[in-house]
Order: sequence, then C-alpha cells, then structure tokens
Amino acid sequence: MKRNLSLGGVALSVLFGSAAFAENEPIVHDAEYYILEAQNGKVWSVENGELDQKLAELREKFGRPPNIVHYMWDDQPPMAFGDVMYQQMRGYSTPNLNQLAAEGMQFSRMYTEPGCTPSRAAVLTGQNAIRTGTWEIGFPIEYAGLAEENVTLAEVLSAEGYATGFFGKLHLGDIEESYPNNQGFDEALWAVYNQVTSLYNATGEGANAIIGMKEELLLDNPYQRDDYFVQDKGFVFYMEGKKGEQAAEWRDGSQEVQDYYDFDIESRERAINFVRASAEAEKPFYLAWWPLWMSFIPEPEKKTLQRGLVGENYQRVIEPDIAVLRHTLEELGIAENTLIVAMADNGPMTHNPPSGAGLGEGLFRGGKGDFTEGGVRVPAAALWPGVINPGQYAADMIHETDLFTTFARLAGATAHIPRDRIIDGIDQTALFFKGDTFGRRDHVFIYQGPDLAATVKDHYKIHWTSNDPGQAKSGLTAVYDLYNDHREVNPIVVGGFHFKEPFKRMRARHELWKMKYPDRHHSRGPAYGNLSNARPETLELSNPPADFENLPFDPLEFIEHLDQLPFELSEPGFGE
Amino acid sequence: MKRNLSLGGVALSVLFGSAAFAENEPIVHDAEYYILEAQNGKVWSVENGELDQKLAELREKFGRPPNIVHYMWDDQPPMAFGDVMYQQMRGYSTPNLNQLAAEGMQFSRMYTEPGCTPSRAAVLTGQNAIRTGTWEIGFPIEYAGLAEENVTLAEVLSAEGYATGFFGKLHLGDIEESYPNNQGFDEALWAVYNQVTSLYNATGEGANAIIGMKEELLLDNPYQRDDYFVQDKGFVFYMEGKKGEQAAEWRDGSQEVQDYYDFDIESRERAINFVRASAEAEKPFYLAWWPLWMSFIPEPEKKTLQRGLVGENYQRVIEPDIAVLRHTLEELGIAENTLIVAMADNGPMTHNPPSGAGLGEGLFRGGKGDFTEGGVRVPAAALWPGVINPGQYAADMIHETDLFTTFARLAGATAHIPRDRIIDGIDQTALFFKGDTFGRRDHVFIYQGPDLAATVKDHYKIHWTSNDPGQAKSGLTAVYDLYNDHREVNPIVVGGFHFKEPFKRMRARHELWKMKYPDRHHSRGPAYGNLSNARPETLELSNPPADFENLPFDPLEFIEHLDQLPFELSEPGFGE
Repeated sequence: MKRNLSLGGVALSVLFGSAAFAENEPIVHDAEYYILEAQNGKVWSVENGELDQKLAELREKFGRPPNIVHYMWDDQPPMAFGDVMYQQMRGYSTPNLNQLAAEGMQFSRMYTEPGCTPSRAAVLTGQNAIRTGTWEIGFPIEYAGLAEENVTLAEVLSAEGYATGFFGKLHLGDIEESYPNNQGFDEALWAVYNQVTSLYNATGEGANAIIGMKEELLLDNPYQRDDYFVQDKGFVFYMEGKKGEQAAEWRDGSQEVQDYYDFDIESRERAINFVRASAEAEKPFYLAWWPLWMSFIPEPEKKTLQRGLVGENYQRVIEPDIAVLRHTLEELGIAENTLIVAMADNGPMTHNPPSGAGLGEGLFRGGKGDFTEGGVRVPAAALWPGVINPGQYAADMIHETDLFTTFARLAGATAHIPRDRIIDGIDQTALFFKGDTFGRRDHVFIYQGPDLAATVKDHYKIHWTSNDPGQAKSGLTAVYDLYNDHREVNPIVVGGFHFKEPFKRMRARHELWKMKYPDRHHSRGPAYGNLSNARPETLELSNPPADFENLPFDPLEFIEHLDQLPFELSEPGFGE
Repeated sequence: MKRNLSLGGVALSVLFGSAAFAENEPIVHDAEYYILEAQNGKVWSVENGELDQKLAELREKFGRPPNIVHYMWDDQPPMAFGDVMYQQMRGYSTPNLNQLAAEGMQFSRMYTEPGCTPSRAAVLTGQNAIRTGTWEIGFPIEYAGLAEENVTLAEVLSAEGYATGFFGKLHLGDIEESYPNNQGFDEALWAVYNQVTSLYNATGEGANAIIGMKEELLLDNPYQRDDYFVQDKGFVFYMEGKKGEQAAEWRDGSQEVQDYYDFDIESRERAINFVRASAEAEKPFYLAWWPLWMSFIPEPEKKTLQRGLVGENYQRVIEPDIAVLRHTLEELGIAENTLIVAMADNGPMTHNPPSGAGLGEGLFRGGKGDFTEGGVRVPAAALWPGVINPGQYAADMIHETDLFTTFARLAGATAHIPRDRIIDGIDQTALFFKGDTFGRRDHVFIYQGPDLAATVKDHYKIHWTSNDPGQAKSGLTAVYDLYNDHREVNPIVVGGFHFKEPFKRMRARHELWKMKYPDRHHSRGPAYGNLSNARPETLELSNPPADFENLPFDPLEFIEHLDQLPFELSEPGFGE
C-alpha cells in the first residue's frame, strides 16, 4: 500500500540526494554564525590548531578516536541533577549523576528544542527541528517520521568506522524510514512513542486515564458512528532491529505494564552488551542511550522523600544505568577514552502533568512546549576523565545541535557532515576542552512548532509571539534581560529600545538564508512498515484511517495537506 | 508629648512585667513542639547530654563561650549564594559567600517571616512577629515600633556577659523604646527604615520615583488643601546610640545619596571595630550586622554580567563585608570560637520590583509578602571552623526564631530567656553540631500580616487563605506536597483528603494556646523621640500628624484604633 507521495513540487532529491558531499568545503551554518566568525575567526583558528593537536595526541595514546555516550532523558529543568540544594528542596537525590557532574563539567546554559520529537531529531541531525519538519511531538498513530534524506550522527560516525547503537526512547516517527536501524544505527531497541504509552496496557492499571484505549476496558458507546476516527488496536510501542535487516516488534505487543518497565532493563542490558562487544572488537563506539525512564503509573514502593514520578524513576532507571555504565567502562579500561554527555531533552512537563509527578516549573518560567527558558533549558554535564577537568561549570550558551558537530569533530568525522544544508550545530570542542568562556555560540532561534517564537542573543531574549498583555504582537519591544528577569515577565520596554532593530536584523538574516536552504518535510507513509513479526491488527492499522472505497475525495489527501503546514512561514511580525 | 496609652483592657504588665523569670522552668513553646517532644524527648535528652559536654569542652578550650555573628540582608531566594549553577544562570557570583557556605553548612529549608520588619523582630525575640505585634513592614512615619517589654537576644546575651553590637538596617520602628540601644545592644548604628530611603534624597537621583517627597523637587500643587496628610520634612533615616545613653541622628539629616552608600561603609567599620574591641577586652560578643546593602539607585559602573541591583550590591557591600569579617577573625585568632550565620531576611521583592533589579521569583512561587514558599524561604549558611563540619547540606526545617534559642544555648544564656510567653524558637544546637536529619522542627505557622495564612508540616503545606480559584476558602483541602509541587499550584485534593483533619487539629492547638498566652501589641508613641541632636523639623514631625486643637475628636484615637487590629483574630476558616 506504499504510495509515491508528491513532495509539493520541489525536486528535493536534487538538493538532498545521497551524492557525495564536497568534503573540503566548510559546513554551512546559520547566518548568525558568520557574524561571529567574522569577529572571532582568527582566535578560533589558532585555538583549532591547539585542539587538533590535542585530539591527535589522544588518538595516539588510545589507538582510536574516543567513544561517545549520549545519555538523555525526558523533561527536566536545570539543576535537576548535580545540585544538592535543588535536590534537597525537591526531596530526592541522584548520587551517581551528581558524581558524574562533579567529576566533569556542568553546563548552566544548555538549550534544546521545547519537546521530545524535535529535540531528539535536532541532536541526531545537527539541525533545528524546523529544518527537518520534525517540529511536532508525535503521538500514535503518526503515519510520519524522520525522513531518509537526513544524515544522522549515527551515519556520520558509522562512515568513520564507529560502532553505533541506539537503546531507549526514540520518538522520531512510526514509519519504516524513521527506524533507527534505517538511520545509521548498527543495532537498536527503541520505544516508538513516549511515556504516555505506560497508560495503554492490557491489565488496566492505566484505566484511570481518559486516554485508555483498550477496547475491552471501555463501555460500548451507543452513539459511536465512526469506528476509524481513533483506532485502538495493533499499536506497536517497542521495536528492535539491525542495520540492513528487517525490524521486529519487541515482546509481540502484549503491552503489560511489566513490558513497559522491562523495556528500560532490556535497554540497559543491550547498551552494556554493545559497549562490551565494541570494546572487544576494538572499535570506537557511539552509544545513544535514551531511557523511557518515567512511567505514569506510580509504583507502590517508594525510595525517595518526594515519592513523585521524577524522584522515584531516577532511582529505578537512571541511577542504576549510570552506575553500571561507569562500572563497565572502568572494568574495560576505556573510561579515559570515553566522553559521556548526560542531559534532559527539554523542560519539565509543567502543563497538565500527572498528579504527584514532581514536574513543576524549575527556576525558569514555563516548561515542555514553551518558548520561555523553562521549555528549552535543561540540566547537562559532560564527563571525560583526564580530558575534561573535574569540578567545572560552564555558563556559555550551548545548543543540543552543537553536540552533533562537536561529536563529529572528536571522532574525526567532520568530513561526513553534509554540506548541502544548514547545520545549526556549532563545533564546541573548545568549550569541552578549555572550559568556561570558550564557547562559540551566543544565540539560539527558538521555534514553537512551526513558528519562530523567540530569539536569544547573549543574555537578551526577544519574544516574537506572546500571550502576555501588550507584548510582542503590539509592536512593542518584548525584550527580556535573562540575568535580571530570568522568568521573562518584565520586558525592558523603554530601557531596551535599542535592542529592537538588532533583533530584527538577526531574524531577517535567519529567514533570508532559508530562501537558499529551505526547511524540509518529515516523511509520511504507512505506520509500522515492514516488521518481520507484524500482528494482523498491526497490518490493518498500517493503512491510514478511513481509506474506504467510493469516497468523493482522496482519503490520502490529508497527508499532502498536512505536509504543507511547515511551508506556511509565519508572518515576520516585526511589529510596527 | 508622651501619653499613657491604654492597651485594650488587658493587664499585660502582669503577664509581661520585668519580674525575674522562673529560670528553672522549661521555656514555653508553641503547642506543636510538645507533640514532637512527646515522641522524641528521650532521644533529645540523650543528645542534649552530648551537646552540653561538647559545649563545655569548647568553653574549656577557648576560655569563654563562642562569639556569634548574625549577618543578614534583604530579599533573596534560596540558592542566591552557595550555588554556582544558580549564580551562572543569574549572571553574578559571590566568591566570599560561596566559600563561607562551602566551608560550613548550608540550610536548604530556612524559614523566615515574609517581610523585613516581622522577620527582624522574630529573630531578635524568638517569637513569630504576630506575638509581638510587629507583623507589618514599617514605612515612614510609623509612630510605632518594637515594645520595651520584649526580651531581645541582645538582652539575653548581655545578661550572660556578652558584648552586643548592632550595625546596619534594623527596621523595627521609629519610637524611642524600639531603638536598639534601648533593646539590649551596647552600641548601635542603625537605619530606621528600608532601602526605599535611597530614593528620598536631596540631590534628586531618586526623583524619578513617584514617592520622591523632597519639597524642593516637586511642583506646587494648587489642589492641595491638607499639608499634614503626608509629611515630608524632618525624617530621620540613620541613628546611632549606646546603651543607657541618648541616641542621635547620624549625619545630621543631609540625606545625600552619598550618605546612603556611606552608611554601609560606616557600619562595616564600626562592626569590625566592635569585634576588635570585644576581642581585646576578652569578652564574648554578639554582633548583629544587617547591611542596608541594596540601593534603588543604580550605579553607573558595573561589576557583574547581570548589572542588576542584586548582583551589583553583592559586590559593593556584602562580598567585602564577608571578606573583612573573616580576615579580622583570623587575624585576631578567634575564628574557631566564632559562629557566623549568613542569611537573607525574607524572599525576593517579586511584586513591583525596581526595573532591572534582578529580584524575580526563585525556585518557589511568590516573594516578599507572600505566604507561599517564595516569601518565607531564604538562603542561609553557618560557619564555625572546627565545630561545624565543612561541605554539609541540611534539609531539616529551621526557622529564624530557632536562632534566638540556639544562640542563647550556645552562649550558656538559656536561663535568661523569659518563661512567661511562647517562644517559637526551638533549640537547634543538635542540627548545628550533628548536621542533616538532627533538626527538631517539622512545622511552621506562616502569618501574612495579622492572619494565619498557611501551615507547613513536614513537606506538606495547607493554605488557610488563597486567591487561587476553588481553593482554601471553599472548604476543599488546599494541601500541597512541597517536594512534588514546590510552587504550590496543584493542591492534592482527592489524594490529600486525610490531611485536612490533622492540619485542623494543629491549628486548633496553636490557637487555643494563644488563649493562655495572647498575642501582644507593638508600641506607639512620638517618632524619633529623645535624640540628642534633633532638628527642629524632626521635633515638629515627632508629633503624630493633624494634632490640631479644637477638633471634634481626639486626634490620637487612631493610635489605639490601629492597635486593635492584631487582636481581631481571623475566622478559623476551617472550611466544611
């Protein structure tokens, strides 16, 4: 039932084909980068020489480039780990994570996209999610996902001989081309969607949730006339697969609560086995280990004073993960040739969180989904014994896309980064090696869904859109000073009059550069495609809903229609 | 013009006279303390034996009881010092305070009253401000202040032979009996009101403020018919005085901006001289050093990335204060016999702060004036080299009134604490000496002005009053779980049904105990009484306003009327 979908008339294959990249050309960055390069390029060039020498020395010492572990989990505000005062006030502790942070470098200004799907896409592609059409948080059933044409970090590092493994929550789509084994990972075990799936279970623990969709738990609805508006059978929540092979559903769709919990245990086991196998094969490895971590079903036995989902699931999943990871690296003698970056994917789910979840706002205003700092700043730390000095704090801005570019450089794989698209990620090797004040970023463009919602430059931030009375859309300068007004509630209107035009210039450069390098689509297609063990109900579900015969319209038109959305660029809204 | 004011018919002199205390009787605490004592008394008794022994050893070693420095400043949220991540996010740093915190113990749950006047009264009397009638933040002119009948920490420690000094912002009233030299301090230099006085200056820097009241800066108002509604000449902002002597205005009322800045410099000099003189006299000392610290007039030259009033004034006042204090103690060889407690007096001024002040909400909801945690939790640390182990964090609840009782015990002065009134302060010597989990408090009653607004027990909190829709006054159980919902936005209604009655019992015990030990008044009288250098305009101002002859009512009746307010106990509001 796969159909060839038109892509809106743009011959994207020309632009984004798999043709060899011009490897000697510089990476294409967003316009703002060149403003910085023009002013800092000479210093950076000297620094780059030092850094290359350091990297060469390390490679000489260890015989291969460094292993990279990117450990990432959901929905946490800055200070959620590594900060004893914060943790005492929230009633939990994470000794293993805190030790990791204390022995490495903590980032007080790590930016992400404001939601799971865009954040995960951004870190794997080095591009803001708007550019790959992955700006929407996916829920079942999407019939959509990360497009094949993207070049992921797994592909970049694979090309340099890295073993690549993905274990945990991916959340990048439910179509075949978005599967991680089709996006560069040698092996993968992954959750297709998010934590809400902990409520979709056969044994009813999630039945209190209105979203529960197990037919056998629901009253027959005598008013129901359309059986296809929402489908409720045949979802696939967990998959596994290897590069070049057919993927399969993990655990055959039994969807007990126990499966949900077991998934993180299984991910841990496979991640550790992957580390061991790579070390034994003497291959450098890239491990993306992103646990599901939080279940929305509370467990009876509590281990924290908080007793909330946050505190408890740190103990259940993340603390043991970190312990076994570090233990294994030590045991294998590769800890000093391994960089671990531990971080959250976006701000806390402050809007309609589960009761007693411990998911309130942190220091910043807002949370997941918001363009205020609460949505896009996360706790993050990097550990690399012998390379990153312990006990450091870095207040430089860093964006998750920078990890793409930085990891590629550390691996000696920069040549495999495509040169035919804008890479938002900036190389931050200097920050990792030399520490605080050596960052190379002073800005982020924050999209909320398909719209440019805010721009940060240094510690000033403009809201391009706002529901606050009198701000942004009225043409006033809704500029906030993030040091003095970190919660973004009192815009500098009079005192900030000289910020308006500079921010407008930044936005104009950013949008003009998109004329040359336009934003792209995610892909659409049948869900759960090509599984080796597809259940009959899954196969039925694979078809987009309401695909009846004799309809007066094309039931698949919605696919193309939805795809148009990201191309409707919002009005610049520069005010008056 | 001093008149003898009736005190509402209650013969308070019987209850609170200066008669000798029954020193062998136990201190009278609030009802809730006895609930804890009944369950923990045996353990505490054993601990007390150990603590007494430790105190005796220290006294033996140093030849006298410990010096106590209480350094306190305005309006800061938890983590404002001692937390690098927080400071990087707010754009300033306090290396000296952070070092003090790192070498001592940080308190993640220090509670205060929600405003300056009540907070300062509470810490000096060991009683919640409601009990001494000091629950209102004073502004000029008050004709009121802390009553003579109170027994301050300075009096308690003086009775044990301590030298006692007060330097900085007092903010406990403008009547003679409230002057610190009349409240137990051997010597004092004090600011009578708060930071807003930085805007009342002769040279006009504060003229942007609507409150500016220098006549010569204002347009003649042709509509003004009453020259006494607000008076604007003769204010006294700074005083000095010694025990048993007449007080004087400091700097003769010139009220230049420079006087405001100089005041903190002069306080520093006198505080250090006081330390030196006490050490030379071989007397133990109690130093209450509470700088004005923040000016509302920004200085042109900036020392922090924040550039806000908070960040800048840490550099201008507090950091050098801490440095010179520690240096002096080291130089005099008394650092190891000196306890320093550094803390803020209440939460940040989040409501209508000066522009660019850096005074936004911290992790908690609300700020100064609010009964949410943002109003009443502050950063705090204790340093006592050789006694308090370095690098500690204490998550126990502690209230500023506990410092009264604890300091008295450390000084061997417990016998001088009055036994005829409720002392809210609980002895926390065990927490100071033994650290985390050795606290003896699990509750606070939070008053907002004269009303009981909230009660905290462990990590649960009930709002007795609220503007949040559907809460508190509707009879629902507005109970919040402070670990899971630290911002107090999602009350546990269904899951918290079993908290309602226990909280009601707590409140009932608290209020019944007041029948035996009723709340008292602050005092009222002429402002700026008995100054040796009183200016003519100050003498005129000393009379309460509109004290004309031939009025059909007693112009002083307002004094008694205002005094009735605290006796109008709010309805219990227990809901249904």
